Amino acid sequence: MKVYLAGPEVFLPNAREILDEKIALTREAGFVPVSPGDLEIPRMPTPLTQGLEISRIDEQLMSSADAIIANLTPYRGIAADTGTVFELGFMSGRGKVAFAYTNVRADFHTRIRDWYGAPLVEDATGRLRGPDGLSVENFGMIDNLMLDGGVLARGGSVIVGNAAPERLYTDMAAFRMVLSVAAKRLLA
Amino acid sequence: MKVYLAGPEVFLPNAREILDEKIALTREAGFVPVSPGDLEIPRMPTPLTQGLEISRIDEQLMSSADAIIANLTPYRGIAADTGTVFELGFMSGRGKVAFAYTNVRADFHTRIRDWYGAPLVEDATGRLRGPDGLSVENFGMIDNLMLDGGVLARGGSVIVGNAAPERLYTDMAAFRMVLSVAAKRLLA
Repeated sequence: MKVYLAGPEVFLPNAREILDEKIALTREAGFVPVSPGDLEIPRMPTPLTQGLEISRIDEQLMSSADAIIANLTPYRGIAADTGTVFELGFMSGRGKVAFAYTNVRADFHTRIRDWYGAPLVEDATGRLRGPDGLSVENFGMIDNLMLDGGVLARGGSVIVGNAAPERLYTDMAAFRMVLSVAAKRLLA
Repeated sequence: MKVYLAGPEVFLPNAREILDEKIALTREAGFVPVSPGDLEIPRMPTPLTQGLEISRIDEQLMSSADAIIANLTPYRGIAADTGTVFELGFMSGRGKVAFAYTNVRADFHTRIRDWYGAPLVEDATGRLRGPDGLSVENFGMIDNLMLDGGVLARGGSVIVGNAAPERLYTDMAAFRMVLSVAAKRLLA
């Protein structure tokens, strides 16, 4: 059972070390890890073709996997890394099993509210809106409902961790819990 | 040819009006529009089940479509709405044709640089990093490379608009251009 490991840790200065740690933990849990750094990316002539080549290879790696574990910890803002979110959608679209986790305890609603730093208002239909009029989700989910929904619709779980700020992308507690839940679900 | 219309306009106070405008333009271009508001969402007993029901119906609408046009205009921060990104990934995973547009001219690299508000640094391998050490994409793309890559890998196009800030989610110039390109590509 091959599991694709999606997450913003690829952007860390010590990405290789963290990816290797996730790979080792995934193997210990009984899965075959598939990770964004697994294949060498050929050097391409322009930034655009270089980016497209990385995308092509990551899609190829995903397509070789049976499941995904997506790290949806907020990235440069209040929502998950969009690359990871694309990958979660991609695997969901292919009908693969999906699991997700975050290292931040505050749910999406709380993070949006804090981001506005101003009271939300209820509109005529009872829907909460920010001061800019944009509606504010309040479903007790870790990110946009399509993400939690995509995971839960495929029998996966969403695990909420609570890492120290300085270990936001390196703390493995929630990831370990996902592996444990996924192993019970998929390898029993 | 059915086209699913993904974008953060569903969160606007005048969402119905804007969705209707996009639906009308899509029909004019020769496509059958499929839009998140097309099916009534049954009232569910809890916020979580309500969110899951919306996700289920949106996935069902997507699965009925042959293509997607994703509005990747930055949303509450420097990156696209994560719900829209999930949907772009979902349709890409299903091998559907994908198009994308943004109403913001500045590319992802520029937006990240501005967000840091501090100089980027080049690491030993020549990769640019923010003051926090996280690597900064520089591929001339509108968002994370998986998004642009997913669109271009499926024969779609990425269209860059330049809307006035007060028309960030309502300006139709880039959307009209996508429709025109998509019609030439898919309905010829």
